[in-house]
Amino acid sequence: MTVNTLLPRIRFLQTPTSDAWVEQSLAHMDTILLDHSHCERKAAGVALNIMFRYPAETKLVRQLTTIAQEELEHFDQVNQIMADRGIPMAPLQPPPYGAALNKQIRRYEPERRLDTLLVSGLIEARSHERLGLLGEHCPDPELAAFYRSLMASEARHYGVYWVLADEAYDRAIVMQRLEELAAVESEILATLHPQPRVHS
Amino acid sequence: MTVNTLLPRIRFLQTPTSDAWVEQSLAHMDTILLDHSHCERKAAGVALNIMFRYPAETKLVRQLTTIAQEELEHFDQVNQIMADRGIPMAPLQPPPYGAALNKQIRRYEPERRLDTLLVSGLIEARSHERLGLLGEHCPDPELAAFYRSLMASEARHYGVYWVLADEAYDRAIVMQRLEELAAVESEILATLHPQPRVHS
Repeated sequence: MTVNTLLPRIRFLQTPTSDAWVEQSLAHMDTILLDHSHCERKAAGVALNIMFRYPAETKLVRQLTTIAQEELEHFDQVNQIMADRGIPMAPLQPPPYGAALNKQIRRYEPERRLDTLLVSGLIEARSHERLGLLGEHCPDPELAAFYRSLMASEARHYGVYWVLADEAYDRAIVMQRLEELAAVESEILATLHPQPRVHS
Repeated sequence: MTVNTLLPRIRFLQTPTSDAWVEQSLAHMDTILLDHSHCERKAAGVALNIMFRYPAETKLVRQLTTIAQEELEHFDQVNQIMADRGIPMAPLQPPPYGAALNKQIRRYEPERRLDTLLVSGLIEARSHERLGLLGEHCPDPELAAFYRSLMASEARHYGVYWVLADEAYDRAIVMQRLEELAAVESEILATLHPQPRVHS
């Protein structure tokens, strides 16, 4: 594979996360942990749903199986950290981020699959960036180490979504659509959501 | 835990699988492998969906995470066996079994959760029994060994569903409802589905 591995990282996110998000998150780490738990479970669900929709796409299915397994492993790790700290599991109102991005997915094929892969990749890329910021700035050494430990697989996940899109569609079409979706993604996050969330 | 571990096994299934199913399956192992792959993916999806519905139920969430992880591992193992044998992944019409059982789930709480856990346990128990029959009778030694290797975790899975139901509801209510659902389950399988499937 000769694809520039930096390409997805650079292209996926158009604007970096603000310092305001870092401050908001560090001030509410219990809520961030709970929201992170929900994010991992949802990410596993997304990978599984895509596999359900394209059951004959062998490579896609095999690679998304690995992603779903890793998300469930992270989910279990966050839940264990929460249990150790006495943070109860609870439902949590999600920020508008996920629903706003899902609205961008066109409902007809083959555009639907392209958009689904790119939106999933964007969410993974943003998670990678933000969990990396927590790994860098969180004053709690256990949490900081935990977030750094997730970096490699989060990076691999958006790489997988990118490659699955890039291999199935014309590169120019993928790049143009990614540009559009990444602009929307950055736009959604331009105003900090009042409640602390991974994607606030 | 003082619960008799044989209890769920005995109570879950009211009638044993017929020889006709074994013959049908052994005569169409490629289709059974493909259907088994779909079953594992669906089983992971079911565990995830239950977790989504009861996100504050810590024990349920933690235990179903393990089940979902194991189902995905089995899913990947079946897919690898299919790849090694040149059996292409493809969509496959499911037998009426799953839909017929899902129709039994009452749509209001707390009955919905009880029925969901018991139906999931019943499906796991039947899968355990049938994959065990393949492990015993399949003349292909690799496949027979594979199916025997799944036995322990399949048994654990219906044990988990049983215990989750038994701990949250009155034992007498659980037993009575299990009796009703198990009767339906055996009734659905009383006539062999014409197409070879794990639950035909």
